[in-house]
Amino acid sequence: MEGVMTYCVGMLTENGMVLIADTRTNAGIDNISVFKKLHMLVENEERLIVVASAGSLSVTQNMLSSLEEGLPGDTPDAPLRTLHTVPTMFRAAQLVGEAVSAARRSIGMVLAGTTINAGVSMLLGGRIGDGPLKLYLIYDEGNFIECNPDAPFLQIGELKYGKPILDRTLTWDTQLDEAVKVGLISFDSTMRSNLSVGRPLDLIVVPSDRAKDVLHVRVGDDDAYFNMLSREWGRLLTEARDTIADPPFMLDPEGV
Amino acid sequence: MEGVMTYCVGMLTENGMVLIADTRTNAGIDNISVFKKLHMLVENEERLIVVASAGSLSVTQNMLSSLEEGLPGDTPDAPLRTLHTVPTMFRAAQLVGEAVSAARRSIGMVLAGTTINAGVSMLLGGRIGDGPLKLYLIYDEGNFIECNPDAPFLQIGELKYGKPILDRTLTWDTQLDEAVKVGLISFDSTMRSNLSVGRPLDLIVVPSDRAKDVLHVRVGDDDAYFNMLSREWGRLLTEARDTIADPPFMLDPEGV
Repeated sequence: MEGVMTYCVGMLTENGMVLIADTRTNAGIDNISVFKKLHMLVENEERLIVVASAGSLSVTQNMLSSLEEGLPGDTPDAPLRTLHTVPTMFRAAQLVGEAVSAARRSIGMVLAGTTINAGVSMLLGGRIGDGPLKLYLIYDEGNFIECNPDAPFLQIGELKYGKPILDRTLTWDTQLDEAVKVGLISFDSTMRSNLSVGRPLDLIVVPSDRAKDVLHVRVGDDDAYFNMLSREWGRLLTEARDTIADPPFMLDPEGV
Repeated sequence: MEGVMTYCVGMLTENGMVLIADTRTNAGIDNISVFKKLHMLVENEERLIVVASAGSLSVTQNMLSSLEEGLPGDTPDAPLRTLHTVPTMFRAAQLVGEAVSAARRSIGMVLAGTTINAGVSMLLGGRIGDGPLKLYLIYDEGNFIECNPDAPFLQIGELKYGKPILDRTLTWDTQLDEAVKVGLISFDSTMRSNLSVGRPLDLIVVPSDRAKDVLHVRVGDDDAYFNMLSREWGRLLTEARDTIADPPFMLDPEGV
């Protein structure tokens, strides 16, 4: 197993975008270390492009390096294609998809016949020029889907434990600070059930309002806010459970 | 796919046992029907034995039929072994494990070379004589684990979506009516994320107190209580989210 256990979530609302990734990687039970999975690839006045990855580390690293070098143009004389020059986020998703597909093919060949999985999936978010914030999920064949307001989040990796809270409490008009809380609760749910997903967590928060700062945050192993959120969430869930009326069949006069 | 999508949960607290199973089965997208997965195999003054199954329908049905007929004794003259005669729940789990393993072997041979999965897993709960309530998860090799007070629930099938609520709000001292609510919320979380798990749901509630009735309940497609619980749960989760203090890094004086 080469870094297969990961959880990343991207949320896109009218108020901005939040990406959160864990940082744990493992090559077997005894070899667990911290590895960055959330990468700000471009951040300047004109464009912001961030990527989160789940799956094979070697495919991810190969893909990131080839994106940095630039992919070949259509003709030998054409300039290399990079995320610094693509005109739209859709073109950025195509370029990353192409890089993922190429990295997977070349490493997949090396790994053929082994049981090592060369699969990878990515979240790609950002904005270019005057365009709106966009968020994509890129599969390892290089194809991709775009986040939409009806389900304003995308997840990769170990995603099932943390999905119900997103389904129930994140909507297109959710405030950005509330979206951050939902994302952290989604991680808390995942980390309780899957020990291979763990803190530190990396967050990037991009407000839709360009006058506001883009935030880069690392939530550490003993982060006081996260500890409080986890504790409070457990307490509030039990309170919520108690608030709901008892099932009518449990109100049987025989008493249960 | 032969009935692979299922969710069943068993909860065992000091106050009693609750088993809940969905009833949907599918053989392809167009062939969805209702099929009972929760079976009360023995229910009399002296013993109560209930089974829930996930996985191959044919293995399950074969296994249930052979349990009903009785498994051969140690010698040709020995009486057949059935759930009506085993002296303890531990022996019941061994007998069911044996029946699962035999059914799987015989059907697995028939299916060898096809892509049809003959896998199955079962929850087995109940009590015999003066013994306490017991709950087991039986794997398809026939081995099994027992529910314990530190994690007073066991799940089979599509279990990840519905696990966080169990992790956070079910403990050994939870009241039985609250446990039923937790189980229904766990199903609600699962059904929102996986369309192949659906109502009707079957419930069996067994109070530890033998003076109280054992309940058999079917929660139908348009059950008013379940609809209310689902709606209220969504509202209460959003309230709980709002109640938690904002992340300190979102309180930046720049304002987000």
